[in-house]
Amino acid sequence: MQHINVGIIGFGTVGAGTVEVLLKNSDIISSRVGSEVVIRKIADLDIDSDRGISVDSALLTREAMEIIEDPDIHVVVELIGGLDKAKEYILKAMKNGKHVVTANKALLAEFGDEIYQAAEEYGVSLAFEASVGGGIPIIGSFKGGLSANRIQNMMGILNGTSNYILTRMTGDGLPYQEAVEEAIALGYAEDPPTLDVDGTDAAHKLAILVSISLGVPITFNSIYREGIDKLTPEDIRFAGEFGYCIKLLAVARTRGNRLEARVNPAMIPLNHIMASVNGVYNALYLEGDFVGPNLYYGMGAGRRPTGSAVASDIISLARQIRHGIKKLIPPLAHVHPQAREASARPIEELRTAYYFRFSAVDKPGVLSKISGILGDHRISIASVIQKGRDLKGSVPIVMLTHEALESDVIKALSLMDNLDVLTDRTMMIRVEQGEEGPTE
Amino acid sequence: MQHINVGIIGFGTVGAGTVEVLLKNSDIISSRVGSEVVIRKIADLDIDSDRGISVDSALLTREAMEIIEDPDIHVVVELIGGLDKAKEYILKAMKNGKHVVTANKALLAEFGDEIYQAAEEYGVSLAFEASVGGGIPIIGSFKGGLSANRIQNMMGILNGTSNYILTRMTGDGLPYQEAVEEAIALGYAEDPPTLDVDGTDAAHKLAILVSISLGVPITFNSIYREGIDKLTPEDIRFAGEFGYCIKLLAVARTRGNRLEARVNPAMIPLNHIMASVNGVYNALYLEGDFVGPNLYYGMGAGRRPTGSAVASDIISLARQIRHGIKKLIPPLAHVHPQAREASARPIEELRTAYYFRFSAVDKPGVLSKISGILGDHRISIASVIQKGRDLKGSVPIVMLTHEALESDVIKALSLMDNLDVLTDRTMMIRVEQGEEGPTE
Repeated sequence: MQHINVGIIGFGTVGAGTVEVLLKNSDIISSRVGSEVVIRKIADLDIDSDRGISVDSALLTREAMEIIEDPDIHVVVELIGGLDKAKEYILKAMKNGKHVVTANKALLAEFGDEIYQAAEEYGVSLAFEASVGGGIPIIGSFKGGLSANRIQNMMGILNGTSNYILTRMTGDGLPYQEAVEEAIALGYAEDPPTLDVDGTDAAHKLAILVSISLGVPITFNSIYREGIDKLTPEDIRFAGEFGYCIKLLAVARTRGNRLEARVNPAMIPLNHIMASVNGVYNALYLEGDFVGPNLYYGMGAGRRPTGSAVASDIISLARQIRHGIKKLIPPLAHVHPQAREASARPIEELRTAYYFRFSAVDKPGVLSKISGILGDHRISIASVIQKGRDLKGSVPIVMLTHEALESDVIKALSLMDNLDVLTDRTMMIRVEQGEEGPTE
Repeated sequence: MQHINVGIIGFGTVGAGTVEVLLKNSDIISSRVGSEVVIRKIADLDIDSDRGISVDSALLTREAMEIIEDPDIHVVVELIGGLDKAKEYILKAMKNGKHVVTANKALLAEFGDEIYQAAEEYGVSLAFEASVGGGIPIIGSFKGGLSANRIQNMMGILNGTSNYILTRMTGDGLPYQEAVEEAIALGYAEDPPTLDVDGTDAAHKLAILVSISLGVPITFNSIYREGIDKLTPEDIRFAGEFGYCIKLLAVARTRGNRLEARVNPAMIPLNHIMASVNGVYNALYLEGDFVGPNLYYGMGAGRRPTGSAVASDIISLARQIRHGIKKLIPPLAHVHPQAREASARPIEELRTAYYFRFSAVDKPGVLSKISGILGDHRISIASVIQKGRDLKGSVPIVMLTHEALESDVIKALSLMDNLDVLTDRTMMIRVEQGEEGPTE
């Protein structure tokens, strides 16, 4: 029986997890594939550090090209991260007829188009389960179990670092900065955790999900991004009084031909199942036109879960190779996509409900001024909380609106900034009304 | 480009949902497959009733054999349910070289072994995503994204009817019988809902999940089953006081070579994500040795979600057919399973924590008698609630135990039944301690 030979480029956290699962669960893997899956080479600039797994030192090399040019290697696994080198290695490996597995979300989000086309051109397979949601089999579900559906709505908690920070701010009232420092100390966040907390990492993952859902790459820069660094424990408390919690959400919706795709802090109802996703966990909630609401939940990062996802891609490719197939399905799982590229509409065209927290001076007539400006911009108020003076001497006026147009909100808030009855910039958070209930 | 021809046997609820999704989303489906998927024939004894979808009447036949013997049909979809006829049709279709898709959980649970072997023997594929969890892509995740893992622990809410009943008993304190009648009136339950509430339906699904997880069929009768019909609103309230809710759980665990597989009402901690699964929703929570905890959630039944799952299987098979492959992976996704058959150990060997509600006469010394018997059977008490007289004149004494052996519990409770200080049989509910937290 033919062995399936794998070369791994990048022996960091995910590389070590991948090697670990391939070695420890080799019995399960060969039983599932029907052939042995063999690690033929591992390339990394550092081949001396201890990764906590024992690997034959003859497998280690500092030269990625030794893997890419090895005629016996069937599958090249790219786990170095970053853009330029990773792209170069992947394209060269494909050109050499290798199937490729990658966990590189930034690369796929920003240069996916080029990479998907190269796979088509060279007639090889490309798999990237590990790029979104760690070990949660999300990509596989889009390619498989959900494949008969139009996905109309997705809401993802796709960044474990920011979800941990928000969970700590919610549960214990920690200020943002303290929660960040704790996350860094516990190893859940890098220092500084910029790409995690500013929404970039979640947007990379959302780009991949939208692309696999539609079957065409989405222009990454069309995805609106907003981070969590301006949120305060007060906003989280007020959200709770309205029956909501705050999560960093990656949202994508299709309405007719219009595509909405954005990452922003959002309020979701406390009785929505996504409100139960806490700590470093990730989840994707989606609604398909036939399947209805679905949720996928698990560890979104970490050596072992991500290694599990990479290994599952290797297994899928190994099954194909055993049957002599070069390419069972294209990278985005559409043989005949209906467009060349997708692009999200500008955030100004968004229609949603909003939360506002105004910092007002404690004088009569302020609420009337505020509501007058909102009314002028077709923004109608759903509920208001006005509390005593506890925020820096000013009075917080907090409200939820009905659905309004973002461009109107932007105009109204910019007028508010000039009001002398408001002592600070107005806090705005988008509200998701995601109804939780049977679809039929 | 070659068309993929499908024949559907059974035009009931799931059949109609399958036809509906194949017709309504034919653009998505052909884009994903790269060929058109064509419904060639639909067989049902009743070809006159309106199913709410317009189908060319020339496609309809009363003769299943017309489908099974049609040389142009690639995929036969069995959706009639039941055992004998369904099995006969599936085996004949396979013998004729057809790939088979089925949603028939009872058949796979009870006769899976024979059917999986026939698929191997005739060199065809068998797919059954719709047999568990409606449209939730659970089977696909076992075959794909989770395939490098040893699944150590599964806890499923796999029957929407009983979950709806328990949700109503929990949220509104409805007695069991009232909740059942409401479920029947709303169309969530059959009348009578025997197989749903007695655990049989969930056990069928658990059998399939255990089989696909281990790669070998499990003997259905080795799965212990207990229904929800003895639960009272009082037990649900007491569970809440201890910080738990009650769900009908399908549980499977492997510890070394020992397999635990059972369906029973179980208490789960309120902060566990499974406690958020309410109404007619289904969910599967599992832990793999690398992926860690994972949850899959969605509608577990219904025409459209189940149709979505059937169609996803058709898409997978159609992709293979286009590439000329008869059989990419075996039915249970293991080419070389490590055993011939699996069997769960007897319930008497279970070790878990327990909830007991004793109906005691209000006299001194009762608690000491009870705890004496428990102590004699190596059952140690974790916490106790004793309340005023509100249950039929007797005093409820409610307790949680530490982990104990089921055979000891059975002996202790049977001794209790003879105590004259207890006025009724003791209520016993198993307790799941499923910790919710990062695995590393």
